[in-house]
Amino acid sequence: MSILAVGSVAFDNIATPSGKAENVLGGSATYFSLAASYFTEVRVVAVVGEDFTADHENVLKKRGVDTRGIEHAEGKTFRWGGQYSDNLNEAKTDFTELNVFEKFQPRIPAEYQDSSVLFLGNIHPSLQAAVRLEMPHVQLTGGDTMNFWITGANHELRETLRLVNILLINDGEAKMLAKESSLPRAARKVLTMGPQALVIKHGEYGATIFFREGAFGVGTHPFRAPALPLEEVIDPTGAGDSFAGGFMGYIASQDQLSREVIKRALFYGGVMGSFAVERFGTERLQSLTRGQIDARFQVFRELTHLD
Amino acid sequence: MSILAVGSVAFDNIATPSGKAENVLGGSATYFSLAASYFTEVRVVAVVGEDFTADHENVLKKRGVDTRGIEHAEGKTFRWGGQYSDNLNEAKTDFTELNVFEKFQPRIPAEYQDSSVLFLGNIHPSLQAAVRLEMPHVQLTGGDTMNFWITGANHELRETLRLVNILLINDGEAKMLAKESSLPRAARKVLTMGPQALVIKHGEYGATIFFREGAFGVGTHPFRAPALPLEEVIDPTGAGDSFAGGFMGYIASQDQLSREVIKRALFYGGVMGSFAVERFGTERLQSLTRGQIDARFQVFRELTHLD
Repeated sequence: MSILAVGSVAFDNIATPSGKAENVLGGSATYFSLAASYFTEVRVVAVVGEDFTADHENVLKKRGVDTRGIEHAEGKTFRWGGQYSDNLNEAKTDFTELNVFEKFQPRIPAEYQDSSVLFLGNIHPSLQAAVRLEMPHVQLTGGDTMNFWITGANHELRETLRLVNILLINDGEAKMLAKESSLPRAARKVLTMGPQALVIKHGEYGATIFFREGAFGVGTHPFRAPALPLEEVIDPTGAGDSFAGGFMGYIASQDQLSREVIKRALFYGGVMGSFAVERFGTERLQSLTRGQIDARFQVFRELTHLD
Repeated sequence: MSILAVGSVAFDNIATPSGKAENVLGGSATYFSLAASYFTEVRVVAVVGEDFTADHENVLKKRGVDTRGIEHAEGKTFRWGGQYSDNLNEAKTDFTELNVFEKFQPRIPAEYQDSSVLFLGNIHPSLQAAVRLEMPHVQLTGGDTMNFWITGANHELRETLRLVNILLINDGEAKMLAKESSLPRAARKVLTMGPQALVIKHGEYGATIFFREGAFGVGTHPFRAPALPLEEVIDPTGAGDSFAGGFMGYIASQDQLSREVIKRALFYGGVMGSFAVERFGTERLQSLTRGQIDARFQVFRELTHLD
């Protein structure tokens, strides 16, 4: 099944304890699409400026990503600059230039209408909702959001959550959205807002998925996938989007959506996140093989597996 | 095999978002012994004051813990007061009264000399070393420490680490001890200081064990046990000591010390930590059954288990 991803394409300036990189291709839709491309057919809807060249587009095309939904607008592409100190879990933003992204109105090419799975990347919740409503044939919708929308567009976000089947956010966002300091209580509350399942990403500690009763199987037992303890994290940028790409991409590649598929998807999410951080930008995600991905999947499996 | 635990016995005043408890029996040796008592024969060496009554001692005795190594000294028992805000991972200390603990000189009863496993709770590293050297027949030594000794008695601690087979500390302590911000790099460095294995406790995210090459089996792959996402954490005090009790207690209960045994022990550590936090003080650890423990072990196993 094919997956449609909506989100940002950006150029990033990144500084980490391992070095610096400038004007590297990034953005949530880019990381997501590259990660998902190892599992299924990916289509992307985003906006770029005049500084986005054929070479940039080829990064996606080489991975088979359908880029017909990338709109080329007048002006510059979204730019972000940030730095990570020794605590690689948190970036300090140096600058954000929205540029063409400020007026982004996602337009879905007619050829994308048969997409079965939709991923709503971290854009304004009203735009997320509009995309979902334009895609009546979608069978499963995943979504992301962030603190900025939880506080700044809460009403719109709550409307959007009613259209999302699986929400993927991090610990802090879940607690903020639910106004709860206990993670499982926060999860239960978010599951009353619309989503049937909630993936909470814990960064270097992996991710937990919580289910609404009866969603994708029986019971409400959560499931947790570990993250690999990595010796060298070169650049954490895009780890969460790559996680989402691995998770949603694996789900879209399966005929049936069972609990077991979702559990494996959670592990694949962790695997793609762990690859993403090994190089600056999307470099590592451009040149993987499915064999390398499955080998790391086994390492992740062994990491918590009792005989 | 029997395990000897050296550490503190205390009376705690605890405030958490769930309520308050005053003068509750606590201390590292108490939590550790109660948790370990569900797996093997436990002996304890500690010091208490005149305020420690037969009723208090009976809490341990009822669980079969051998308390002949508890020295009754003139004065008051160690007292600690602390509070947890919404972030249940960190306590703010209100007061620490060392009392009889200040002059604690562990004395090992002759009857304890045949203990096979030793756990050096969080006391001055020089005392830890002295105890280990007095126990020549011990086959496996586990140890704990804390920031206070890492900065205040670093030289003594480094000497003690040469006598410890498995060190159990948390993320912050590991990074501080190794002067490394990356957890796996910190782990590798700590493993050059003496221990063959290092357990890093991640609080609500579980724990990871790192192995020196060839220790307890082949290879250096780390292993990670999850923690259960708990709806209600009533009182986090003693979670780490209870983890250590479950981990070391299970190891001591097994004839052979293989990687598989250590992996299961890491899960049992998480299980005992998860029980400890469900009530104030040691209440929950006093009245468990092995059946309840094994049932939760299965829940932990299912939490990350792929078919």
